[in-house]
Amino acid sequence: MKKVAVIVGSKSDKEQIEKGLHILDKFGVQYEFKVISAHRDPEGLHEFVSGLSPDTHAAVIAGAGMAAALPGVVASQTLLPVIGVPMKGGALNGVDALYSIVQMPKGVPVGCVAIGASGAVNAALLALRIMALTDEEVREKLWQYRQSLKEGK
Amino acid sequence: MKKVAVIVGSKSDKEQIEKGLHILDKFGVQYEFKVISAHRDPEGLHEFVSGLSPDTHAAVIAGAGMAAALPGVVASQTLLPVIGVPMKGGALNGVDALYSIVQMPKGVPVGCVAIGASGAVNAALLALRIMALTDEEVREKLWQYRQSLKEGK
Amino acid sequence: MKKVAVIVGSKSDKEQIEKGLHILDKFGVQYEFKVISAHRDPEGLHEFVSGLSPDTHAAVIAGAGMAAALPGVVASQTLLPVIGVPMKGGALNGVDALYSIVQMPKGVPVGCVAIGASGAVNAALLALRIMALTDEEVREKLWQYRQSLKEGK
Amino acid sequence: MKKVAVIVGSKSDKEQIEKGLHILDKFGVQYEFKVISAHRDPEGLHEFVSGLSPDTHAAVIAGAGMAAALPGVVASQTLLPVIGVPMKGGALNGVDALYSIVQMPKGVPVGCVAIGASGAVNAALLALRIMALTDEEVREKLWQYRQSLKEGK
Amino acid sequence: MKKVAVIVGSKSDKEQIEKGLHILDKFGVQYEFKVISAHRDPEGLHEFVSGLSPDTHAAVIAGAGMAAALPGVVASQTLLPVIGVPMKGGALNGVDALYSIVQMPKGVPVGCVAIGASGAVNAALLALRIMALTDEEVREKLWQYRQSLKEGK
Amino acid sequence: MKKVAVIVGSKSDKEQIEKGLHILDKFGVQYEFKVISAHRDPEGLHEFVSGLSPDTHAAVIAGAGMAAALPGVVASQTLLPVIGVPMKGGALNGVDALYSIVQMPKGVPVGCVAIGASGAVNAALLALRIMALTDEEVREKLWQYRQSLKEGK
Amino acid sequence: MKKVAVIVGSKSDKEQIEKGLHILDKFGVQYEFKVISAHRDPEGLHEFVSGLSPDTHAAVIAGAGMAAALPGVVASQTLLPVIGVPMKGGALNGVDALYSIVQMPKGVPVGCVAIGASGAVNAALLALRIMALTDEEVREKLWQYRQSLKEGK
Amino acid sequence: MKKVAVIVGSKSDKEQIEKGLHILDKFGVQYEFKVISAHRDPEGLHEFVSGLSPDTHAAVIAGAGMAAALPGVVASQTLLPVIGVPMKGGALNGVDALYSIVQMPKGVPVGCVAIGASGAVNAALLALRIMALTDEEVREKLWQYRQSLKEGK
Repeated sequence: MKKVAVIVGSKSDKEQIEKGLHILDKFGVQYEFKVISAHRDPEGLHEFVSGLSPDTHAAVIAGAGMAAALPGVVASQTLLPVIGVPMKGGALNGVDALYSIVQMPKGVPVGCVAIGASGAVNAALLALRIMALTDEEVREKLWQYRQSLKEGK
Repeated sequence: MKKVAVIVGSKSDKEQIEKGLHILDKFGVQYEFKVISAHRDPEGLHEFVSGLSPDTHAAVIAGAGMAAALPGVVASQTLLPVIGVPMKGGALNGVDALYSIVQMPKGVPVGCVAIGASGAVNAALLALRIMALTDEEVREKLWQYRQSLKEGK
Repeated sequence: MKKVAVIVGSKSDKEQIEKGLHILDKFGVQYEFKVISAHRDPEGLHEFVSGLSPDTHAAVIAGAGMAAALPGVVASQTLLPVIGVPMKGGALNGVDALYSIVQMPKGVPVGCVAIGASGAVNAALLALRIMALTDEEVREKLWQYRQSLKEGK
Repeated sequence: MKKVAVIVGSKSDKEQIEKGLHILDKFGVQYEFKVISAHRDPEGLHEFVSGLSPDTHAAVIAGAGMAAALPGVVASQTLLPVIGVPMKGGALNGVDALYSIVQMPKGVPVGCVAIGASGAVNAALLALRIMALTDEEVREKLWQYRQSLKEGK
Repeated sequence: MKKVAVIVGSKSDKEQIEKGLHILDKFGVQYEFKVISAHRDPEGLHEFVSGLSPDTHAAVIAGAGMAAALPGVVASQTLLPVIGVPMKGGALNGVDALYSIVQMPKGVPVGCVAIGASGAVNAALLALRIMALTDEEVREKLWQYRQSLKEGK
Repeated sequence: MKKVAVIVGSKSDKEQIEKGLHILDKFGVQYEFKVISAHRDPEGLHEFVSGLSPDTHAAVIAGAGMAAALPGVVASQTLLPVIGVPMKGGALNGVDALYSIVQMPKGVPVGCVAIGASGAVNAALLALRIMALTDEEVREKLWQYRQSLKEGK
Repeated sequence: MKKVAVIVGSKSDKEQIEKGLHILDKFGVQYEFKVISAHRDPEGLHEFVSGLSPDTHAAVIAGAGMAAALPGVVASQTLLPVIGVPMKGGALNGVDALYSIVQMPKGVPVGCVAIGASGAVNAALLALRIMALTDEEVREKLWQYRQSLKEGK
Repeated sequence: MKKVAVIVGSKSDKEQIEKGLHILDKFGVQYEFKVISAHRDPEGLHEFVSGLSPDTHAAVIAGAGMAAALPGVVASQTLLPVIGVPMKGGALNGVDALYSIVQMPKGVPVGCVAIGASGAVNAALLALRIMALTDEEVREKLWQYRQSLKEGK
């Protein structure tokens, strides 16, 4: 089973992204979690991303706040599907991160989800939908998850 | 090879989404293209979406403007990865569509791309990245496409 | 006397919508209150909405947050007047919900009120104005309510 | 059959609101159309609105641009359901009108529709849904209209 | 010496407007302070405003929140200079009030100041500048106030 | 009779402000019109503003675009009432100018009107309302102007 | 070694700007820190700024909130590079300050950084980059600082 | 005399940035102009930026639109002062680029100027102010330029 790579730009993003990691845990999907800033450690980011391959990983989830370059920079260095999560916070409360992630120029795609923890959950679920294309077990679990949504909350 | 489903909410969205269809054509990927409004023809939409399966399709691209419910409604009726494209236009020029697509509540994921034609192109490329996970040929073509970006434009 | 149907997309919307339910109680108008998410339980929503009829109900009040598809989806499944209430909250504090509800494409109308609890109160009052068209008692009570506004607050 | 009152704040609003008047014409519903500014002719507005009654009218559609006080002022002077249409235009392209109409303080309800001509169409349709509560013919025509939406556009 | 009329739309606006009343007190200028909602008590507002005259009053300060019609409605009923103060609060934190006050259509002027308590202070100072045109004492005090600004804060 | 000083920050602002100058002409009120940028010619601005006095002038109308410092700088250098007009244009279409003018910190008041030509008209009318406090003729003309608004447009 | 001039418009801006002063301290760079409002004390500001020279100072950091004229006014009175810091706070949380600082009309440049304390830090670092052009020691320390970013936070 | 490096992310940005290049030409300052996208050609960008040094260059001007990562990525790879220019265009008309450039996280500074051609001019002038710190000739020319602004426009 392929893994998911999860990168956030700052330690302070951990709390929001964790809601997504819980989903991956719940589905029994393995992930590598890294804190690497695109702006403060471009070499470290490049090193990590160039180690990712479509043969071992199914998607990259990248979360960042403010002028959130991380998801776009990752997408420019890999051919894996990249899912961007704008982090809530700062004076603009994540609208800056949203625009920085979703308004990618043509040629380098990022699939952006909602600002904050809800987005982190959906980023995980989108990665799982991608895995489910070729993994019957994940597909089955997604089906059960969707049923639980109808009752639960 | 799996297909991509492409749905827009209105005939007037065709021009913007076509930039994405060109990409799929260029990569030799088959797609089904439909104009179905989530608000004006919910039954028609449900009928089309329930015919899609992870065994035959790799992703759904859904483009809509204004209070753009289409991508979210599609995502609620399938387990395929859904990529939303906010259409440019109207008094708010697509910011309404952006918020209606990207701010999905947790549980039902949509990967949102940029407003308008740039977004349509990237939606196609994101679908291709998903296909490339299991399709060497698409992966190879993505690699070439990326090289062309460095020179080309 | 006809009833009012009140639907919210999430349990967490209850507190805001309750200000509107109090108004309906005060006016002695019966309502059915449901928590059903358009995205997480589309079938449940469809089942409930298809049971509503202009012969038994005067209006539907639908409250939802973020990419708030609920009011529009309800309006696409009934011919009753639908009043949308954007819920306050999330990173955008309800602006996303406002745009998702008020910017409906032509053909499927929703009457949108203010974000949050003030909107919930006005949604109830708008439903009561609709009922007052054919109900002298409600009209009389609306008149008294309006007088009380001039003094009270 | 009751009538609909339609008021706009300025001659320049006519073009946008006409899309809604066409709908009323198409449904064979009578309306009174007035151009009266809430700010420039408050007495004229008051005179017209005080002549409206739930016995003769089913709804008031009020369209205005910029600091659009018209719908709220009308709602403060009648107990009829008021539907507000924010006019597109000016430096803010109607966002000012949207906020001025939709963010009504609690106690005086206005049901707001989308900015511009799409909103005008939906305002008419919302008025028709209100009339359909007690008018079988309008209800039948709304049903046909909805069917036409599924094919037509 | 002429007086200043000060009106706010709701009791909850008192705290913000008080910062402006303190300034008037400090300058020894008399004012009439009223809480009257343009939407909830249009008759009461009209009665109060029609009692104001350029012979007895120098300006009207009108503060309101959300879809803040108050300043514009006052300006439509008097020829006195009207100063509008957008109240901070609600889901949009006063941006709605700002747009509703500042974007007045041509013909009926309102001078708008900043959102919230800072605006209330400046509304008072603007009224005092108007009074200072014909009142040497106020002019002298404004001069001293300005000097104090340079040191103090 | 006192005069009105009218300053804009750039030659390109002339077209918008002229709508206000026409009003002053129509009322037979004299004005001095200057093009002086607060940023490009601070000394020239200071020289002009320090020549203004409450004994000879009734108000200053200051129009500027983008980071529109002009009205605030003028208000910091005179005790006359200052009316700010945000100019429409640029990438943000005048929202930047609006915020730069209306959000003055406490202590230095500017009365802001709408963005663009409508604002210029209302700036002139607000200056005239100030003059009308002590000038019966202007007051009479304002009365007639208001009557004309009710019919005219 | 040249100094950096740091000016904020209000005492309340001190807390945010201090994060930048710490950076200057850490790098052993001297600075003059002043609280002078462009609106409340234009003469005091002019006096301070005219004492600055490219021979003694390398840059001016100017922080202000709301209608933040300070950085632009400073830039109009000196030929030194000016770095503007929009202060977080008020009803618009600093967006007003951002627009007032970054949208400078052509001819008078200000380099704007992020809203609030993050911006203050980066303003200091930008001043240090300017100093590093001719100061080997600062350049060496910037290099070390950048290395520390990659590890720590 | 040191040079200025000027980079834009796309050929379509040329027209806007040229207003800044004219300024550099006018001042007789040499520059290297490159079109390199941070997202489409990260390696090419890295190669160019790593060739820049404080010994040969005084500043980097980086212009980009939409999710404008270019200025931040450049700033992360050099210690030179980086000036960012948000390009006007796209559905959000440059607000996305503005937020992506100005809201840099702490540690990696970018000095942002206005959206579009005005910003390009000011970016050049800011680079010239930096050069003027150590270059008497540029300082003299800036002085003359400033004088011309007072008359000229």
